[in-house]
Amino acid sequence: MSEAGDFSGAWVREAAVRIQPLIYRTPVVQWGRFFFKCENLQRGGAFKIRGAANRILSIPKQQLERGVVAFSSGNHAQATAIVAEHLGVQAAIVMPSDAPRAKVEATRERGARIISYDRLTEDREQIAGRILEETGGTLVPPYNHHLIMAGAGTAALELIEDVPGLDALVVCVGGGGFISGCAAIAREMNPAIRVFGAEPERANDVWQSVRAGRRITIPPPDTIADGLRTLSPGVLTFPVIQSLVEEIFLVSEEEILEAMRRVLYRLKLLVEPSGAVSAAAALFGKLPGGLKKVGVLLSGGNVDAELIRNL
Amino acid sequence: MSEAGDFSGAWVREAAVRIQPLIYRTPVVQWGRFFFKCENLQRGGAFKIRGAANRILSIPKQQLERGVVAFSSGNHAQATAIVAEHLGVQAAIVMPSDAPRAKVEATRERGARIISYDRLTEDREQIAGRILEETGGTLVPPYNHHLIMAGAGTAALELIEDVPGLDALVVCVGGGGFISGCAAIAREMNPAIRVFGAEPERANDVWQSVRAGRRITIPPPDTIADGLRTLSPGVLTFPVIQSLVEEIFLVSEEEILEAMRRVLYRLKLLVEPSGAVSAAAALFGKLPGGLKKVGVLLSGGNVDAELIRNL
Repeated sequence: MSEAGDFSGAWVREAAVRIQPLIYRTPVVQWGRFFFKCENLQRGGAFKIRGAANRILSIPKQQLERGVVAFSSGNHAQATAIVAEHLGVQAAIVMPSDAPRAKVEATRERGARIISYDRLTEDREQIAGRILEETGGTLVPPYNHHLIMAGAGTAALELIEDVPGLDALVVCVGGGGFISGCAAIAREMNPAIRVFGAEPERANDVWQSVRAGRRITIPPPDTIADGLRTLSPGVLTFPVIQSLVEEIFLVSEEEILEAMRRVLYRLKLLVEPSGAVSAAAALFGKLPGGLKKVGVLLSGGNVDAELIRNL
Repeated sequence: MSEAGDFSGAWVREAAVRIQPLIYRTPVVQWGRFFFKCENLQRGGAFKIRGAANRILSIPKQQLERGVVAFSSGNHAQATAIVAEHLGVQAAIVMPSDAPRAKVEATRERGARIISYDRLTEDREQIAGRILEETGGTLVPPYNHHLIMAGAGTAALELIEDVPGLDALVVCVGGGGFISGCAAIAREMNPAIRVFGAEPERANDVWQSVRAGRRITIPPPDTIADGLRTLSPGVLTFPVIQSLVEEIFLVSEEEILEAMRRVLYRLKLLVEPSGAVSAAAALFGKLPGGLKKVGVLLSGGNVDAELIRNL
């Protein structure tokens, strides 16, 4: 396994060039001292296409023809399907049976084959492994891969280019791919920038791991933030988080919902629960004092209609 | 009264410089061949601050100290209140008693004095007139004023700068201030660009007026698009529309609601009913064939929570 030292902002800069034809440069919306990077407006409705595109565009052509395989609660699935469709290759996606319908449908619409599994009793990596053996395809992991981390980090690269003088970033934490990519490029562009994570209280695997100084695995978590229900940080993402992320803030389920409401009514933006976790940390006083310009990454916007009604 | 000839793109360019410190340059979000200009993300939640700022910043200082007066269903009220608060002057706003609560509250929060009236039985211009006599303040009309039209047009100026090669614009039509400003600058920047209006079927005063060749007044209309419930086009806006707008498309109430839904779920953007009228015309096949890149102006995003639940 690689050390954190192998991964740097240079990976993110390379990714930015590679994926540029496939992604949108998403806008930044200001609210007071907060600058929200709108990855909910990204193609596929989340930042995930950045990593999937960077990974898939790096696969040699002959190997690529055997297709790609991904496991994901939704946004990474949809992202992988979009990139595969764009390149004309088959995608097989392993998705939990309780993934939001909007995400499952959007993935199917892209021509991907969906393999459903029970999140509480089955192991998605094992299922993906079987498909890889059958097809000879290539795995597109959701976060624990330097190309995925680098692709995700391009969102922070754009944000820092577009908003000069940011003194902090707040990024949601699932498996740690998004925040590790963002932290690597952010600290390279501005060594003084402070990088904070935001994680649901009920899925605090990374928060626990940072405190323990080693990767902790938690039971399948029950949080509304379906994109952040990881059981442990990645082998590759964790050392980057340990070395570059100052602190991880925990947010409650009610804070997540209230952040969704405020972002919808005030900013006119629809974010999914996972996408609201960073906003919740920013809006509900978790950050240290003295920050003048804070970049907040809104990771995605794929929400089932039912949840919107219940807001 | 001035002729259409008095009003030109030059007014819009001057406005862009004047109002720049007070407004956001809103992002553009692409969906296929449509490029949505997100004035729902504008300060105050709508394009209206562009006109209000242009008007108010043009009032001589001594006169400005007597305050400003506006009548509006909501967005123009809020815009006027924001600009007045910014400049430290008093704003008195005449609002219909059935205006969306979100708009009334946001206006009050800005320190404005709200004067409520019954839209079906009272005349808002008369009420505003009385206040002007009492205070010696200055009227900030919602649309029928060259400075208001010019300010509104700065949204199209930005859109055309940001998206080269647009062959058409679609703009919602209330009193005609937004579309006349947009049409003037758009046709000056690109004489080949086609400018289309979109108006609710149930508030078709401008559509009727264009057909009749004269300003038609309709009874108080009943449409969900509360920002477009004007009774007739303006004396100043109408000749600009006659000379520069190719066609006005009518959309039904159901099309407006369905456009709101699609913009929310697909684009992750909250638009109010009036803001969805242009999207409805674009998404439901009203436009002529052969258009490759169409700019669609989303005019605002101030929606009551109840309506969102009912989507």
